[in-house]
Amino acid sequence: MSSYATRLHEAIRKKGTPALVGLDPRFELLPPPAITAAGMRRAADKASMMAAAFEYFCFHVIDVVAPLVAAVKPQAAFFEELGPSGCRVLARVIRRARDAGLIVICDAKRGDIGSTAEAYARGYLAGADPDAAAWAADALTVNPYLGADTLEPFVRVATQRDAGIYVLVRTSNPGAGTFQNLSENSLPLYRHVAGVVEDLSRMTAEESGYGCVGAVVGATYPRELEELRAAMPHVPLLVPGYGSQGGTADDVAAAFDTAGLGALVNISRGINFAHRREPYASQYGPEQWEQAVEEATKQMIADLAEQTPAGCLRRE
Amino acid sequence: MSSYATRLHEAIRKKGTPALVGLDPRFELLPPPAITAAGMRRAADKASMMAAAFEYFCFHVIDVVAPLVAAVKPQAAFFEELGPSGCRVLARVIRRARDAGLIVICDAKRGDIGSTAEAYARGYLAGADPDAAAWAADALTVNPYLGADTLEPFVRVATQRDAGIYVLVRTSNPGAGTFQNLSENSLPLYRHVAGVVEDLSRMTAEESGYGCVGAVVGATYPRELEELRAAMPHVPLLVPGYGSQGGTADDVAAAFDTAGLGALVNISRGINFAHRREPYASQYGPEQWEQAVEEATKQMIADLAEQTPAGCLRRE
Repeated sequence: MSSYATRLHEAIRKKGTPALVGLDPRFELLPPPAITAAGMRRAADKASMMAAAFEYFCFHVIDVVAPLVAAVKPQAAFFEELGPSGCRVLARVIRRARDAGLIVICDAKRGDIGSTAEAYARGYLAGADPDAAAWAADALTVNPYLGADTLEPFVRVATQRDAGIYVLVRTSNPGAGTFQNLSENSLPLYRHVAGVVEDLSRMTAEESGYGCVGAVVGATYPRELEELRAAMPHVPLLVPGYGSQGGTADDVAAAFDTAGLGALVNISRGINFAHRREPYASQYGPEQWEQAVEEATKQMIADLAEQTPAGCLRRE
Repeated sequence: MSSYATRLHEAIRKKGTPALVGLDPRFELLPPPAITAAGMRRAADKASMMAAAFEYFCFHVIDVVAPLVAAVKPQAAFFEELGPSGCRVLARVIRRARDAGLIVICDAKRGDIGSTAEAYARGYLAGADPDAAAWAADALTVNPYLGADTLEPFVRVATQRDAGIYVLVRTSNPGAGTFQNLSENSLPLYRHVAGVVEDLSRMTAEESGYGCVGAVVGATYPRELEELRAAMPHVPLLVPGYGSQGGTADDVAAAFDTAGLGALVNISRGINFAHRREPYASQYGPEQWEQAVEEATKQMIADLAEQTPAGCLRRE
C-alpha cells in the first residue's frame, strides 16, 4: 500500500497532467440526449429519473476522461439534492471512477467535532482500498472552521487508510475574503489555517515531500496561491476556479513545485457542459456531447502543459 | 404558512420547553435489545442491517420524545457513514419526526459556493411543507467559512420555504478557539460571523423579533454565549454541548430572552444513551431503554425550567 500523496503523484505522472475533472451533474445543463438515453431505462419518481440521468452522464464523462486525467471530483451537493436516490448514484459514480483507475476526491466539504468528524472520515475515506468505506473515495474536502482538533480525526483515518483530505484554506468565490481575510498579527485567517494544515501534512509526509493533508486554494486569487504554495511546502493543493470562474493556466502556474507536482487544477462546468460553449457548441453540440467533453479536456491539458511547470510531466 | 421562527416558537410554547433532542445513532452505544428487534426484521448486508437498527432506534426515540419536546436534531454523519442505506434511513427518520409534529433540524453542517450552496439549500430545506425537498427538514446547520456570499443562497431558499438555517458561530469543542478566536480590531472571528448572521436574520425578522437565520453557540463557553446573545438579538440560537460535553442548565441561562424564547438547548448522547448512565442504568438498563430516554428527557426539561428563563414557558 502506498500513501495518498504517492498514489496521487504516480497517477499524475502516468497521465502527464495535473488536470482534475469535476463531476457536477446540474440537471438543467445536462445534454438532452443524455437525459433521454438514461430516462428510457427506468420509470419511477422524478428524483429517481433525475438520479438515473446523473448516473448515465457521470459514467460517460468518467469513461471519456479516464484515459486522459489522473483524478475526478464528484460534487456531493448535486447528488444529495435528489435525496437517497441521488446518494445511491453518488456511491456508484465514485465506484465507477475507482474501477476506471482514477483517484476520486469527494467534494463534500464535511466538518464536525470529535467522534462525529470521525464518522464522516470513516464513511468517506476509503483510501487505497475502495472497500474500506461506504463511499469509496480516495480523498475528501474538509472545512476547518470548527478548529484544529476537528481536523485530527480526519487525519488519523486518512493515515490509517492511505487516504487524503483537502482542507478549505482560500476558496475561489467572490466573497471568500469575508472571514478568510480577517487578520490577527498581520496574518489573515487563511494563513493561520494554512499553518495548521502544513503542520499536519508535514507530520505525515513521505519521501515525495508531501503528506496526506491537502489544501483547497482558489485559482481566482493568484497572489494568495503563490503565497500559500510557499507557506505549505508539504501540502498537495486542489485548485478550483479554473475556467468558468475566471482562473487561467497562467494564474495557476504558482501552484506547482519545480517537478510540476504538488497540485491538481480542477475544472467542472467547462468540461461537463463543454457542448454548451464555443468552439465545442458549434463543432459538436448536445448530440456529440461526449466528444465535446473529450476535446475540452484535451485543451485544458494542453493549456496547463504550455503555461505551467506541469508541462515537464509530458516530457518525462 | 408561517415563518420558521414563528413555527419554532409556537412549538416551543406548546411543549413549554426549549429542549432539543439530538438523534445520534452511534452503533456501539445502541441498546442491544433495539439492535435485536431491528435485526430480526431483515437480512441483508452489514450496512443495511446497521441502518435498520438506526431506523428502529430513532423511530422509537421520536415516539418517546414527540409529546415532550418541540424539536429533534438528527446528526447526518452517523447515517452517512453507512452509505446510501444510511441516507435512506436519515430521510425516513426526518419524515417520521415531521409526521410526529416535531420541528426537525438536520445537523449536516453544509457549506459551499454559489449554485452549489443552493443545491444543498434546495435539497435539505423543506421548511413548512415537508414535500418541498428530498430531505424534509425544517432547518439545516451551515458552516460560514467560505464567506458571507455563500450564506445567501441558504437564506434565500429558507425565506421562500419558511425554513431556517443555523450558522456555526461558536462551536462547543475544546479546540473551537483555534480559528474562531482569532481577532481583528479586538473582535474575534466568531463575532465577525455573528455580525453577518445578525444582519441576515434581522432582514428576515417578523413580529416575534426573530428571523430565519439562527446561530450555533456552544454551552461550553457560557461567557461567549452571553456575549453572542446580546450581539445577535434577532437570531434564534441552537446551543449544543449540554450534558455529556459539560454544559449545565446554569451555563445556558443567558441564551434566552426574557420570555424564555430565542434558543434551543440540545442534548444528544445524554438522552439517546441514557440507559448507560446513572441513575437510569440501574433503574432501567438496556432492556427498558425507552423509559430511560423518557426519564432523561423529563429531567432535562425540569432542569432547564428551574434554572433558566425558559421556566416561564411552563407557567403559561
